[in-house]
Amino acid sequence: MHERYINEEIKYIWSDDSKLHSWLETELAVIVARENLGQIPKDTANNIILDLKDNPICLEKWRELDSALHHDLNAFIEERRRFIRPELQKYFHQGITSYDTEEPAFVRMLRGSAEMVVQEAEYILDTLAYMSDYYRYTPMMARTHGQEAQLQSFGKRCLCWRADMELACGQLDDAANNLRYSKLSGAVGNYGGLDSKAERAALEILELDPFYGATQIMPRVMYQPVANALCNLVCVCNKIALDIRLGARSGRPLYHEPFGKQQMGSSAMPHKKNTILTEQMEGMARMAKGYLLMITSCIETWEERAIEQSCVERVAWPDLFHVAMRVLTVMNKVLSGLVVYPDNMMLEIIESCGCYASNAAKEFLKERAARVGLSVEDCYRIVQLAAFNAQEPCFTAQYIREQPRNDWVTADQQLHELAKVEWRRRDSIENIIAQARLKPSAQLEMSKEAVKSWNEVLRQLFDSETLVAWHKLFDIELLLQGEEALY
Amino acid sequence: MHERYINEEIKYIWSDDSKLHSWLETELAVIVARENLGQIPKDTANNIILDLKDNPICLEKWRELDSALHHDLNAFIEERRRFIRPELQKYFHQGITSYDTEEPAFVRMLRGSAEMVVQEAEYILDTLAYMSDYYRYTPMMARTHGQEAQLQSFGKRCLCWRADMELACGQLDDAANNLRYSKLSGAVGNYGGLDSKAERAALEILELDPFYGATQIMPRVMYQPVANALCNLVCVCNKIALDIRLGARSGRPLYHEPFGKQQMGSSAMPHKKNTILTEQMEGMARMAKGYLLMITSCIETWEERAIEQSCVERVAWPDLFHVAMRVLTVMNKVLSGLVVYPDNMMLEIIESCGCYASNAAKEFLKERAARVGLSVEDCYRIVQLAAFNAQEPCFTAQYIREQPRNDWVTADQQLHELAKVEWRRRDSIENIIAQARLKPSAQLEMSKEAVKSWNEVLRQLFDSETLVAWHKLFDIELLLQGEEALY
Amino acid sequence: MHERYINEEIKYIWSDDSKLHSWLETELAVIVARENLGQIPKDTANNIILDLKDNPICLEKWRELDSALHHDLNAFIEERRRFIRPELQKYFHQGITSYDTEEPAFVRMLRGSAEMVVQEAEYILDTLAYMSDYYRYTPMMARTHGQEAQLQSFGKRCLCWRADMELACGQLDDAANNLRYSKLSGAVGNYGGLDSKAERAALEILELDPFYGATQIMPRVMYQPVANALCNLVCVCNKIALDIRLGARSGRPLYHEPFGKQQMGSSAMPHKKNTILTEQMEGMARMAKGYLLMITSCIETWEERAIEQSCVERVAWPDLFHVAMRVLTVMNKVLSGLVVYPDNMMLEIIESCGCYASNAAKEFLKERAARVGLSVEDCYRIVQLAAFNAQEPCFTAQYIREQPRNDWVTADQQLHELAKVEWRRRDSIENIIAQARLKPSAQLEMSKEAVKSWNEVLRQLFDSETLVAWHKLFDIELLLQGEEALY
Amino acid sequence: MHERYINEEIKYIWSDDSKLHSWLETELAVIVARENLGQIPKDTANNIILDLKDNPICLEKWRELDSALHHDLNAFIEERRRFIRPELQKYFHQGITSYDTEEPAFVRMLRGSAEMVVQEAEYILDTLAYMSDYYRYTPMMARTHGQEAQLQSFGKRCLCWRADMELACGQLDDAANNLRYSKLSGAVGNYGGLDSKAERAALEILELDPFYGATQIMPRVMYQPVANALCNLVCVCNKIALDIRLGARSGRPLYHEPFGKQQMGSSAMPHKKNTILTEQMEGMARMAKGYLLMITSCIETWEERAIEQSCVERVAWPDLFHVAMRVLTVMNKVLSGLVVYPDNMMLEIIESCGCYASNAAKEFLKERAARVGLSVEDCYRIVQLAAFNAQEPCFTAQYIREQPRNDWVTADQQLHELAKVEWRRRDSIENIIAQARLKPSAQLEMSKEAVKSWNEVLRQLFDSETLVAWHKLFDIELLLQGEEALY
Repeated sequence: MHERYINEEIKYIWSDDSKLHSWLETELAVIVARENLGQIPKDTANNIILDLKDNPICLEKWRELDSALHHDLNAFIEERRRFIRPELQKYFHQGITSYDTEEPAFVRMLRGSAEMVVQEAEYILDTLAYMSDYYRYTPMMARTHGQEAQLQSFGKRCLCWRADMELACGQLDDAANNLRYSKLSGAVGNYGGLDSKAERAALEILELDPFYGATQIMPRVMYQPVANALCNLVCVCNKIALDIRLGARSGRPLYHEPFGKQQMGSSAMPHKKNTILTEQMEGMARMAKGYLLMITSCIETWEERAIEQSCVERVAWPDLFHVAMRVLTVMNKVLSGLVVYPDNMMLEIIESCGCYASNAAKEFLKERAARVGLSVEDCYRIVQLAAFNAQEPCFTAQYIREQPRNDWVTADQQLHELAKVEWRRRDSIENIIAQARLKPSAQLEMSKEAVKSWNEVLRQLFDSETLVAWHKLFDIELLLQGEEALY
Repeated sequence: MHERYINEEIKYIWSDDSKLHSWLETELAVIVARENLGQIPKDTANNIILDLKDNPICLEKWRELDSALHHDLNAFIEERRRFIRPELQKYFHQGITSYDTEEPAFVRMLRGSAEMVVQEAEYILDTLAYMSDYYRYTPMMARTHGQEAQLQSFGKRCLCWRADMELACGQLDDAANNLRYSKLSGAVGNYGGLDSKAERAALEILELDPFYGATQIMPRVMYQPVANALCNLVCVCNKIALDIRLGARSGRPLYHEPFGKQQMGSSAMPHKKNTILTEQMEGMARMAKGYLLMITSCIETWEERAIEQSCVERVAWPDLFHVAMRVLTVMNKVLSGLVVYPDNMMLEIIESCGCYASNAAKEFLKERAARVGLSVEDCYRIVQLAAFNAQEPCFTAQYIREQPRNDWVTADQQLHELAKVEWRRRDSIENIIAQARLKPSAQLEMSKEAVKSWNEVLRQLFDSETLVAWHKLFDIELLLQGEEALY
Repeated sequence: MHERYINEEIKYIWSDDSKLHSWLETELAVIVARENLGQIPKDTANNIILDLKDNPICLEKWRELDSALHHDLNAFIEERRRFIRPELQKYFHQGITSYDTEEPAFVRMLRGSAEMVVQEAEYILDTLAYMSDYYRYTPMMARTHGQEAQLQSFGKRCLCWRADMELACGQLDDAANNLRYSKLSGAVGNYGGLDSKAERAALEILELDPFYGATQIMPRVMYQPVANALCNLVCVCNKIALDIRLGARSGRPLYHEPFGKQQMGSSAMPHKKNTILTEQMEGMARMAKGYLLMITSCIETWEERAIEQSCVERVAWPDLFHVAMRVLTVMNKVLSGLVVYPDNMMLEIIESCGCYASNAAKEFLKERAARVGLSVEDCYRIVQLAAFNAQEPCFTAQYIREQPRNDWVTADQQLHELAKVEWRRRDSIENIIAQARLKPSAQLEMSKEAVKSWNEVLRQLFDSETLVAWHKLFDIELLLQGEEALY
Repeated sequence: MHERYINEEIKYIWSDDSKLHSWLETELAVIVARENLGQIPKDTANNIILDLKDNPICLEKWRELDSALHHDLNAFIEERRRFIRPELQKYFHQGITSYDTEEPAFVRMLRGSAEMVVQEAEYILDTLAYMSDYYRYTPMMARTHGQEAQLQSFGKRCLCWRADMELACGQLDDAANNLRYSKLSGAVGNYGGLDSKAERAALEILELDPFYGATQIMPRVMYQPVANALCNLVCVCNKIALDIRLGARSGRPLYHEPFGKQQMGSSAMPHKKNTILTEQMEGMARMAKGYLLMITSCIETWEERAIEQSCVERVAWPDLFHVAMRVLTVMNKVLSGLVVYPDNMMLEIIESCGCYASNAAKEFLKERAARVGLSVEDCYRIVQLAAFNAQEPCFTAQYIREQPRNDWVTADQQLHELAKVEWRRRDSIENIIAQARLKPSAQLEMSKEAVKSWNEVLRQLFDSETLVAWHKLFDIELLLQGEEALY
């Protein structure tokens, strides 16, 4: 992983230093277990530990041996064994094969890393829980297909983000639950060296359980779901990040990732506040999917094992953990520092021409449709037309839409004319419909006659009592009362 | 591929019917070639063709034989051979192996499909060329990081879309150029059956060249770049689609994919105009990447071949072509029907507080910095501060930002107050700087003193001559004069 | 999915016909639930059901409407609604949005498909359980890195295959357990239409539970683990398939996938028995990974949803299920018809020069090393050298290795000489070591002197008592006694 | 990338140190170019170079600034600018944006890395060319589907490996050819800062050409084919590696990757010679596909750019180059040190029962079929039956196949009986057919009568003249004469 995205603790867990110490723990656990079972002489373990204690693992020596033997585990054994008194040397790595030493170390590296991720993810769950409460009464336009849809509270959006995160966290928990199985069952997994009692005892020391069904190695299908859950966690964070980027678009941002007080947005354009943190998550998600693919492909191997998986696991696992930690750490920073603009959320509602209640409006009409001779589809089309009417541009804008610009002079002229147009609040479907002011629209295939007859029906429909009920439709509290169920 | 996304011509090319006819063409080409070379008796070809002509390939019989033989090519040979006069039967599929028959057919299926894609892509290149001319003088805010950046013309954006497309098209052209090599060199590729003269002659009939270095099959690395180019083409279309979706976000869309006059945007919310066509492209791009992965993994096989690639190629190639054709066809529809709102593009410029020229403004100050005792960084920070000042919210908005909402009553109240705030044009960096009206901002770490001293410098700097030059900076024509180089 | 790999039941589940019926079930469940809760008049449900019963869904009409509305769910509603008596039409799809209808249908399609896969996978678990018992006492060479390693029983290999399968099945079970959540919470997931009581009641009818945290759609991260488990299942099958292909390599196959009595292995070479079934699994695994990637990428969407996932899910989910079913069905066929050659397994042991016990031999020496002045590494190197000695080629072979062949005459000559060499059993490390017959090897860096001194030590070591213990090392029953723990 | 797989030169190219120097080169090129064009005062460039020369880039200072500014390029500019005399500071990074500086550096890093890969790949092409000549007359069994097929020379296999490599190298060459385009066209790519003349002049200094159609950044679709070609190169190497692993399987290896004279194959089993180098390539190929996916996904971005691609490119590009270099370096080592066993290749031919000519045998019969009343299918089935006959096991083996083993005693007994069976050369289809000794086989559905009548036909067919022609079929030189065309 690139320096910039390194998590120091993950880096240490996967370092040679940590790995070799973890290997040593396997070796010693085997010796202790066998001694406890009476399979080797008393005091063997203590004496070996004594001999090794004063001679810390020398990484340089290990690397030197490795390059001669082309076998990192054998190199490790030789590096260690040289410090053990001769008569006890035979007990070191006795009856086990390289991957008996490595597998318990590997699963514990996975476990340690996964635990870090889980903890960091929990901070986000907490932050999102706080946010969903804090913004429970902050209304905003929900958006589907990038388009303003109905109302929701921003708290509710946070709550959905949290629900996604919780699912991904649950997947990681479940998957990590399997990070307690390992094996010491020898070169082909049938206890050619250690017996199964010694395996169980040694693994217990390492806080692991034996898995029955290993070959020389543990089946990689056991660990793959951890990678999958990590990838999903990253993708969920990226989904949240996408929402933040979308909401942060100028001119009227709904929220923005934190921007440092000394930060520079762009080397060229001083006004920029770029969403670089959340954009990075998209990049991280792209990586996570690549690493997941690599790790998934390690399920396949030949017979009792070939070593295709080794280089992949040396790279993809730590890098995927780095990616996950990076994403979670940055997401924590983004969420806890999120700059929220409730005023802009409200402005969107104000300027939405009442469309935020178009569904309610349509249902309102449907409820009364039969009575006034409207079909169910008519009701839909009336509200659709009202919405399109409400969003008709002003005259100048319409002119500009239709007129090509063949030089900069024209463009400039249009721009200035547009700048001079007086600002006006847009019409609302609330009024267009209640006041029977539907107009044909070039965008929709409805005849003048149809529109005219709809207006007549509407006029007839909206007596004063109906009007009261109608205007209630657009009440925020009412529209959002359903959110109660989510809290 | 799902019915919905099928291209009928691609479907036919990859149908059993088409494939078997293509196999037959290989078989006949071999016979003709060998006859021409005098390797088999005169008139063999004509007589075999005669025998087969009146007996069209029976797909049912073929399927029946296949399920007994577990070998689709042998089944085909038996289906055909039964109609050949006995004494000529031995010449049919003589000296060649199954994949001698299949490979020339396969590469021609690829070629036929690729040609369709190239043609469809060219329509898009044409449309985009037209658009980049048509909108050459339509100014808009370019966006980086989702944030308004500098000015550009919409024509220029179209031109960039086109450049991307052209690169991807070029990659497809290059890759498709290799779709003319094949082999008839027998079971392990060393002319155990046909000799190389017969191979060349037969392939020539099929408009193909021999490839020296085949095993039983052609190396899949030869064709993979076609899949890669298809995937890239789809991704480029999706990049354009993303831009369209981003520009189509309500409230003030810059453009919108075409919306049918009878279309319904949502079953619930009649006001919706959803960007379903362009969103689908994201889905298609996700698929394309999956298919690319499948096809890439077929480079690996065992020795002179194993048949892992067969099922993948039956599925992934046609499905990738369907995806590509779908994306291109829909993109053509979207682009040629694109509803463009130049008025909204202009409104964005108008409301950008002059930030569209922040780069020029900064350079302007830098040019004069030494003279008035400003550092280069000061110039940057002055423009940055002016931009942040310009975007400060009004009092009510600021109040709403700071005040939590603990119930719907408060929310409603805030909303109504905000709705009542009179609309005002935002300040501009053009004026803030020229009039030395910088104010400290809570968002940036600058002392009151620094700001004060900057204002003093600015006051001193902006004499009437400087002011003239300064205001020129914000002129659209000038800012966009560089685009000339692109046209 | 290509015709050839279709599972008919999966195909039906994902057909338009099935989907529309499932949509209808959602719609009716909502009406029944609301009626039961008193939200709509009594008898509404019955009457609507009555109206629709006699008018089966017309797919053609639906497609026609869809192509006008560009909205398949709206098209469905119109197709259905036309048969409902006018006064009840408003209750059909009332208060819910398209994806309220679709999501419960979708999750049930997933569930139905997953159940089929689970069942098929269980057959394999049974077959493998049977095989691991049946071959419990059939010894074979285990292989690591493609090289003969130690002994194991073939039953043990089957047991490991089963353990892998069981892990993958467990993952599918766990993931499928989430296929019971859905939502009817409206256009943005906050009960703008139905209230949460109606949601719960309607979902209960469909045997589903509500999920709190949906937007317009269910979060895709919830279902992705099903795809992951399917992919893993396929990869595990491919791992088994790889082992079968590796064991089936001529000249001395250990087992072979079933070969039909009328089957043709190759159109050119009648002697071929190709492993086409197991090779196909590699292709299927390549596809599964592609589909997993597609489905994983659907976790990301915009805000309360965009529709990128729709086309992917229409294609990738059913196709992944087809792939999984195909692989499982074929694997069942392969395993239950597997032709096993225990004689060849034994021949491998016989010809392995005793290397199958090299680990035990090394440990035997290490146990006595200190006594006779050997280092632990010496013990390793002695066994290594003995193994290399045992595998030295005969004189003619050695000659051929060293001599280049510059024409076919020489090659032919060498071949004939080699064919005349009398067959001899290879030497064994059992004897080479016990009889102190180590010889230097050009392949290993050991001095003549070292080898000489080792031989002397060995001569000294192997008294008659030691010899008895030594020869016991090579006893199969003893070597395999550890497998007891696995049964 | 993990330490173990690092290529030092690639590492340097992508280091911060190298990158910052490359950025500096861009900055200086711009200044020089502008001075040459008279856009800035004379001697600006020289003086700036002079000021910077004595103050080497300080990485620590840069990192410090970066963490305050959150912008690595701005941090770089500040780090450099502080050493420039005040009056010239404004010319440094004037009129360009961050990615104007970065893009030319980036493309040159790609180019430098690609050149290294091309060179390393060429060594392999040379080695394979040598091998295909050296082994031109070394016959071996070609294998399809892992099964012995027809004869080929080992030289021919090397030649096919080379052909694959050459295709992949050609793809890299083609793709790398585009690594000469870049841009200095400003924040949104329309020459808001530099004009296009200055761009062209500055790029020329950097040995680059301008690309017209950039936004703030170069379109990533331009570089993606380099990643694709790298991935393909790795996959081709892995295809070769797979062949080597398959050929190296004990008991009778055809070739083996080099094994160090001090190497240890396994910590437990001293006899092992594991194919760890070639297995690693499978792991590397898994990684390459993951990195390709990551890089491909960077084609998509928002509008004039967002920065999703940055972290991906920092990681995936150098890591993919490391993977490619590792694979090529190791493959070079493997191929140039490949231990080849021509004797074992010949033994496979000898023991193949003449099946290596089954195709020729079938064609021989077909040629004479009509004359003796055999159908074309009969000819196929006769050779198939002969091949199956030839491979029938001996009596003891057959007994072992049919008898289950319910304890170790039985297993041991069977093993010992099998060990005692006298070795015999297998029968050959050459003799079985010529001597009309076909026997029914339980594996094939052919009636006794059919077999009997075939034998009769064969007896009749094989007169002495026919026999002479028949035996010639099995001649190696003749069978391999077609390879001439490949050399």
